[in-house]
Amino acid sequence: MTILVNGTEADTVPVFDRGLQYGDGVFETIAVSAGFPLLLDEHLQRLHAGTARLRLPAADPEVLRREVNALAADVGECVIKIILTAGEGGRGYLRPESPACRRIVSTSPLPPHPPERWSAGVCVRVCETRLAVQPALAGIKHCNRLEQVLARAEWSDPAIAEGLVLDTAGNLVEGTMSNVFAVQGGIVRTPSLTGSGVRGVMRDAVMDLAATAGFPIEEVDGPLDDWLGADALFLTNSVIGIWPVSQVEDRQYGIDDVTRTLLNRLAGARLAPLPPGVFRR
Amino acid sequence: MTILVNGTEADTVPVFDRGLQYGDGVFETIAVSAGFPLLLDEHLQRLHAGTARLRLPAADPEVLRREVNALAADVGECVIKIILTAGEGGRGYLRPESPACRRIVSTSPLPPHPPERWSAGVCVRVCETRLAVQPALAGIKHCNRLEQVLARAEWSDPAIAEGLVLDTAGNLVEGTMSNVFAVQGGIVRTPSLTGSGVRGVMRDAVMDLAATAGFPIEEVDGPLDDWLGADALFLTNSVIGIWPVSQVEDRQYGIDDVTRTLLNRLAGARLAPLPPGVFRR
Repeated sequence: MTILVNGTEADTVPVFDRGLQYGDGVFETIAVSAGFPLLLDEHLQRLHAGTARLRLPAADPEVLRREVNALAADVGECVIKIILTAGEGGRGYLRPESPACRRIVSTSPLPPHPPERWSAGVCVRVCETRLAVQPALAGIKHCNRLEQVLARAEWSDPAIAEGLVLDTAGNLVEGTMSNVFAVQGGIVRTPSLTGSGVRGVMRDAVMDLAATAGFPIEEVDGPLDDWLGADALFLTNSVIGIWPVSQVEDRQYGIDDVTRTLLNRLAGARLAPLPPGVFRR
Repeated sequence: MTILVNGTEADTVPVFDRGLQYGDGVFETIAVSAGFPLLLDEHLQRLHAGTARLRLPAADPEVLRREVNALAADVGECVIKIILTAGEGGRGYLRPESPACRRIVSTSPLPPHPPERWSAGVCVRVCETRLAVQPALAGIKHCNRLEQVLARAEWSDPAIAEGLVLDTAGNLVEGTMSNVFAVQGGIVRTPSLTGSGVRGVMRDAVMDLAATAGFPIEEVDGPLDDWLGADALFLTNSVIGIWPVSQVEDRQYGIDDVTRTLLNRLAGARLAPLPPGVFRR
């Protein structure tokens, strides 16, 4: 495990960093396979969009690219997390006039998910924790993640791979750590994320794969029942790629042709660290 | 400036602390006057309520009390901030089974507000940033403060002391760093904070003072115009005590008898580090 803080090996940050004080920052979680950070450009673009939305100075993408590439080449297979905080200073919530952002790049092992999560699908619950509707923060991957922490704290059974989360209006938004898609009559649908949720880099990549494959795509919002009536459901994030959903609470799903096609194309494009042998069947 | 991390002098925390990673924690800001932390019991009670709501283990109040009292006696006049984070560990948003919370107690100087903020009142703006409605987090002083940071980033004019913030439904909630009260026809009103906002320790103290003084109190919600039509407005927090409001955008207010009475009683009870000679007139 290596950690670079502003380019120097370190494992701590100052107490008065605004990331710790207020969650004043953004982050990215990047899968690394065979020494290469996957979808790095897309992650850096979202990071940039996040800093812009939070009115933070942009980080130099070339510096980030160099640090991520170096760690990735070193470690080979891992997850790299970038955190950009607003740094220190200011008076209370007021930032200093020119914040000196702090850049934290760290590696951690790929989570050891069993291959069945891709080949057979995952069992999913519905969380009681709701997401607030906050368009000012929707879409970006900021460091205010208490809603996700509370939702994830609702279960400890390792057989349940993910929890679906609704917003306070009752519309499905995402999983605690993933985006959600439904396939119905050949159409690929996913929540719009205009009010809550994180616009995942893998979500965009999968939408591109779906478009290339000729599947109609819709970004729509609706209550849980609208989604659970679909032919198939799947989850996406940068580390898992695509997980088909086999079960939501008591309801069972199969892996349909659309999901299988997307998994095959994702594997072919090498956009996620998928386990070998779970697709192209 | 002294910082205690888990009881030991230190000025950093580990990068993987969940406070930095996700804002997974709560905090308190305590005014210290003549070596005494003001309203310490009340702050420790709210901290306890916050950890309970976030399903974190309770901190030992006696340990906190001892550390705060020692720093307060050392420094005399200052602000003491307590942060309790969920500590390190877990997998992503999932906390470890028994989180080892991290306790950070630090001092900083009292902010140098001019005495006119109490004697003549403060000029206030209305923020464009809205607060999301999230009952699961409303009331507690958690470390997810991006909404406040964004609201406070809207202005830099030092003549503007505070910004009022509405929720996404258009109801007045609070200031960026304070609670707000309105006085109309002798009745003291303040927003209910059931959907958003922080239930300030000073808000409770001022409501107690108002009750003792025989003023009727109402916790109600309503759009900004309902509030701006009041006879008088004032703001509260633990460091400022009570600031009368002299102006909101283009609208002027005087300091009414109710606000003056509350300021006098606050000074008499020594519940905030008020500047000498700005009341009892």
